[in-house]
Amino acid sequence: MTADSLPTAFDLASRQREISVAEFFLKNRHLLGFDSGAKALLTTVKEAVDNALDACEEAGILPEIRIEVKPIPHADDVFVVVVEDNGPGIVESQLSRIFGKLLYGSKFHKLAQSRGQQGMGISAAGMYAQLTTGKPLHVLSRVAGQTRATELYVSIDTAKNRPEMHKKQQVKWNRRHGTRVEAELQGYYQKGPHSIDMYLNQTAIANPHVTLRFENPNDEKLRFIRSVSELPAPPVSVKPHPHGVELGMLIQMLNNTHCRTLLPFLEQEFSRVGRKTARAIIAQAGNRLSARSYPRHIARAQAQALYHAMQEVPVSAPRTDCLVPIGEKQLEAGLRKELKAEFYTVVTRPAAVYRGNPFQVEVAIAYGRPGGVGLEVAADGHIHKAARQRQAAKEEATDASARLLRFANRVPLLYEPGACAITKAVMQTNWRAYGLRQSKGALPIAPMIIMVHIASVWVPFTSEAKEAVAGYAEILKELKLGLQACGRRLASHLRQTRRLQQEYDKRTHIEKHLPQIGNALQDILQLSDTARDKAMSNLDKSLHRRRKIR
Amino acid sequence: MTADSLPTAFDLASRQREISVAEFFLKNRHLLGFDSGAKALLTTVKEAVDNALDACEEAGILPEIRIEVKPIPHADDVFVVVVEDNGPGIVESQLSRIFGKLLYGSKFHKLAQSRGQQGMGISAAGMYAQLTTGKPLHVLSRVAGQTRATELYVSIDTAKNRPEMHKKQQVKWNRRHGTRVEAELQGYYQKGPHSIDMYLNQTAIANPHVTLRFENPNDEKLRFIRSVSELPAPPVSVKPHPHGVELGMLIQMLNNTHCRTLLPFLEQEFSRVGRKTARAIIAQAGNRLSARSYPRHIARAQAQALYHAMQEVPVSAPRTDCLVPIGEKQLEAGLRKELKAEFYTVVTRPAAVYRGNPFQVEVAIAYGRPGGVGLEVAADGHIHKAARQRQAAKEEATDASARLLRFANRVPLLYEPGACAITKAVMQTNWRAYGLRQSKGALPIAPMIIMVHIASVWVPFTSEAKEAVAGYAEILKELKLGLQACGRRLASHLRQTRRLQQEYDKRTHIEKHLPQIGNALQDILQLSDTARDKAMSNLDKSLHRRRKIR
Repeated sequence: MTADSLPTAFDLASRQREISVAEFFLKNRHLLGFDSGAKALLTTVKEAVDNALDACEEAGILPEIRIEVKPIPHADDVFVVVVEDNGPGIVESQLSRIFGKLLYGSKFHKLAQSRGQQGMGISAAGMYAQLTTGKPLHVLSRVAGQTRATELYVSIDTAKNRPEMHKKQQVKWNRRHGTRVEAELQGYYQKGPHSIDMYLNQTAIANPHVTLRFENPNDEKLRFIRSVSELPAPPVSVKPHPHGVELGMLIQMLNNTHCRTLLPFLEQEFSRVGRKTARAIIAQAGNRLSARSYPRHIARAQAQALYHAMQEVPVSAPRTDCLVPIGEKQLEAGLRKELKAEFYTVVTRPAAVYRGNPFQVEVAIAYGRPGGVGLEVAADGHIHKAARQRQAAKEEATDASARLLRFANRVPLLYEPGACAITKAVMQTNWRAYGLRQSKGALPIAPMIIMVHIASVWVPFTSEAKEAVAGYAEILKELKLGLQACGRRLASHLRQTRRLQQEYDKRTHIEKHLPQIGNALQDILQLSDTARDKAMSNLDKSLHRRRKIR
Repeated sequence: MTADSLPTAFDLASRQREISVAEFFLKNRHLLGFDSGAKALLTTVKEAVDNALDACEEAGILPEIRIEVKPIPHADDVFVVVVEDNGPGIVESQLSRIFGKLLYGSKFHKLAQSRGQQGMGISAAGMYAQLTTGKPLHVLSRVAGQTRATELYVSIDTAKNRPEMHKKQQVKWNRRHGTRVEAELQGYYQKGPHSIDMYLNQTAIANPHVTLRFENPNDEKLRFIRSVSELPAPPVSVKPHPHGVELGMLIQMLNNTHCRTLLPFLEQEFSRVGRKTARAIIAQAGNRLSARSYPRHIARAQAQALYHAMQEVPVSAPRTDCLVPIGEKQLEAGLRKELKAEFYTVVTRPAAVYRGNPFQVEVAIAYGRPGGVGLEVAADGHIHKAARQRQAAKEEATDASARLLRFANRVPLLYEPGACAITKAVMQTNWRAYGLRQSKGALPIAPMIIMVHIASVWVPFTSEAKEAVAGYAEILKELKLGLQACGRRLASHLRQTRRLQQEYDKRTHIEKHLPQIGNALQDILQLSDTARDKAMSNLDKSLHRRRKIR
């Protein structure tokens, strides 16, 4: 190749092009969770179910969701996925864009907790279906009060990130309101920790108000019926908190506001800023700023002063009614229903903030197998051996690590544990301090399930597939505090269990020698046999009574 | 809240909105590598340097790059980053979009190896600068042959993902061609494994044809001067391989092609398909398809048949001239220059394919500290003790894991080792088989550096920050084969070293007893002292000669 044939700056310029976001994610589809057949099938179900749950809850409807995954006969690895909900339905004008355009949705621009946040998932599933089978998504939706449902076949024009409608018509549907989406895609159905079955099981734990019915490719019917018939409180949408705003964002807000002067701008566009705080911020900023400054005319240096003043003036902590944790009671109920154990404890941490976004951590622990150490304290103070003791002891001797269940905004996270802040927090917690075995930097070794939930108006996921939580320092800190609180309670339970065992051993020893003591006393005090037996029985009782078990 | 106040489907519909890709990544900026100050500073340098290297190489220019990172006086944690190259320059009409629009570039749509591939990095750095300091990017670029350079201040209108120009003018610049970009951003400068210094050091190892000059915030001047003055061969841009195309992509290609009939479509739009193969594919497809079928009129069922035929008809393996590995010689030279060790080995695997994308793996190992076991075989067969032996032995006794350097398309990957297929492949390799210590699922314990490079027309990163490679099965397999090949060579070196040590011990033993043997022989054979000494000297030599070291 000679120097003349090398491209010039002009040649290079002619190759510059805009990249559509759909093309980008089609090429990078592992970023959205479509890198293998098994994951593609799970992700498709997950995105459709998450959307269904969000829609039901937003409209105040107790969710009932039917999921079906069936192999297509005579087609290798091709499945049809159906997810049908009893939600409010989607109006016709929005249908094609919701299912046929990436980065389109209602949840991105508001600060409120929801499962979806990107406006990508279900359209990406459609794009993957189209890529692997060439078939468009088949959608059916009926809005309450309308006589008919809208039926739509839609795919994505990836070069333009635009919906392509193939057929749209009004049809009868016996559901009064709801949405049904059907996709045909290449995939692989598997059991185990990454399965659709597991995802639905864990969804039921974190959402005790939801009923899920699943028919899997093996023709098994799984049912998760709600244990709570009240919806969680609807999360409130909030404004940004002044302490979490960055300079560039402030400049942008100043340019885009509808407020004509600075004082109402501060009051209306920020959370926790009243008249008094707003005036304090303006006074602190100085730089010729006043309550009547026109936001769009504020210069960069003034904006910078305003920004610093917003950080310095004390403002109440962010509102937390935008967050809906599962709640200690509900979480324990959900855990008890799906997992049998000997000891349960749940901690809901107070809300905290990362980069201005409120979030809240919940941790639950289910320890030991049912039956546990197998010792029970009776009402009279006697300790009894329960059945199954030997069995349980044998199981406990195994070297299995604790199982970790991760959740974000009530959605189970099944993939990428290694990249997740939750896993890191569990591994960095010193479980030996709570009486468990643990190798350095590993999960504790115990017959235990640790469940961790993080609720936030914006969960910082490590990728668009929403499989792992990014390790912001504030989040790691809250996670650890929650784990430690649960750990201390577990430690107290384990100490008690151990005391019980020691006490039991001691008493067994005493009881063994009581008859000899009785005989000796009888000789010394010259008692009758009846008097001796009575004295011994009293002694026995008082021994049990005095050595109270906490 | 009463039922009436709950939102209806129409209320929900009114909240649906398009999300700009810039807004999306501003909110998700950890996805682009801007989640902490330290990372933001590194990512900014990295994106600018990667672009500079790509531009120079594409235009056939040996890259000379100057990097400067300086703290802004009296501003906490604010730095100015300057990256200046001797590349071909960027024509004026493209400048604003290249630096002020996400998903805009020349590398996404072609299948050829390059550092950048997304058209996001440098604009994202600009967006982050703007967010944290409010300042636009300052760009200067001069195209060879033009009398003046273009100076531009540009930021991003994030709500629309569009460049916002603040000032543009023609200025004098003493460079004949090149580009200079300057950003002012909040950040944190650190030393260590995630530092800019380390990134540049590793860039020099993988790019021995590059000269880098870095002035860091501590006023230290680092220089990495090229050791090779020839550019790597320019990678050739390829068409997709028929075995790597998915059905949906084929349908899209049929719709978008400029070819009027099927036969030229197959020949021109695919790699490795000639007239004969194209005819074979059409015959195999059947379904009334012929060489003259009009691509846009091909029905879905026909496309499916065509797709299956493309998989079934044998086609030569993908072209590999789209890949430019570093090369065994260059890689070893680079390693030797930057890292002193006792043993080096490099393996470049043949090219392979994942999802239709050619890729190639290179593995290098540098083992042991200089001096090593400290034994040398002299020309006469004698083994000598080298200096520093005790020192080296002491160092080897430490329990440190091997250090792993990861590269993708010649770019060092410093973050997210745990999420990376390269790390997984190293951990899953059985290093005990090669004579090293290793805990299960961990890095081997040895005084060793493992360097792994993957070159591909499309590296599947686990996030847009391009920090870790996704674990496609084909990639993991190639990585392991490369590691095993290096491992076997290392094992042979270690065996030889051990033999040398044993041999040395034996000879020392023999030499110790030779005088006694000499005296005994003198007595038995009644030799003179001279004859005895001569016989002993011959015996010593022949012993050394016979026990040859392999």
